[in-house]
Amino acid sequence: MKNLDQYIREVPDFPKRGVTYKDITPLLLDPGAMKLAVKLFLENLGDQKIDKVVGIESRGFFFATLLAEKLEAGFIPVRKPGKLPHTTHSENYELEYGFDTLEIHQDAIKEGEKVLLHDDVLATGGTASATCKLIERCGGEIVQCSFLVELEFLKGADRLKNYEVTSLIKYS
Amino acid sequence: MKNLDQYIREVPDFPKRGVTYKDITPLLLDPGAMKLAVKLFLENLGDQKIDKVVGIESRGFFFATLLAEKLEAGFIPVRKPGKLPHTTHSENYELEYGFDTLEIHQDAIKEGEKVLLHDDVLATGGTASATCKLIERCGGEIVQCSFLVELEFLKGADRLKNYEVTSLIKYS
Repeated sequence: MKNLDQYIREVPDFPKRGVTYKDITPLLLDPGAMKLAVKLFLENLGDQKIDKVVGIESRGFFFATLLAEKLEAGFIPVRKPGKLPHTTHSENYELEYGFDTLEIHQDAIKEGEKVLLHDDVLATGGTASATCKLIERCGGEIVQCSFLVELEFLKGADRLKNYEVTSLIKYS
Repeated sequence: MKNLDQYIREVPDFPKRGVTYKDITPLLLDPGAMKLAVKLFLENLGDQKIDKVVGIESRGFFFATLLAEKLEAGFIPVRKPGKLPHTTHSENYELEYGFDTLEIHQDAIKEGEKVLLHDDVLATGGTASATCKLIERCGGEIVQCSFLVELEFLKGADRLKNYEVTSLIKYS
């Protein structure tokens, strides 16, 4: 079996010139690679108890429901504005030019619940740190921030330095 | 244990006045309900072999990766324009006012592969029938179109009449 990083397809100049996009879809196409990724995510957690797994829209959803099932935890989608129908908390975060917003249902987490944050890629850490704030505003305790891919040169882990950060595939 | 429909929260006047939105997030929060839903999805398939599970952006992703894992199949995201980085097929579909587009990676399906289409809600069937066309343009054979919720009064199944359509929770 290949290493996980061999399932990542590099797409030059996407979504814009000068950026090399890490395409995870070849990994998703391979059941063995998916299984290995889930196994490694769970190993990184060890025996830490998790009540809720938060996946960030929308590629964070791919593994977050799988992890929730394995951990016998609930799954919570964190979404773009206007997508969640019930009462939400919102957090703005900075983009290269301008701002964007993420939302969580206020009743998704109970005070003191142990939460695993998951997304596919850790880049600058903007969406992940906004999601950490959302989880904490709900009263959740973040056990780990878990990523499939980490672009270490963008130093996203620095913005998450108060949390345990793990990733399966690192680009330095 | 409650029936699955008891986990659906009805939100009046969302996303607009006069529409009652079926919010599936309470179901996602409950590991037992998620497990039951997966079990029922698999029962609806019986022993039909599946090579690939297609999930439609973005709520279709919640269960599609879970189903892919259980079926030992690959997972394929069908996405809004500009999200998939490699060469795609595109299909337009009609909205109440105007059009929208969905895309699939051309190399995601091999000729003759057996495909399960999954989305959270079958409403008018516009996104699902566009996705059927995408799957067939890749050479895939659609085994079943599977939904968590079906809004029968919108007659989406009529637009999918060439396919096997199943859903776990029906509103008539």
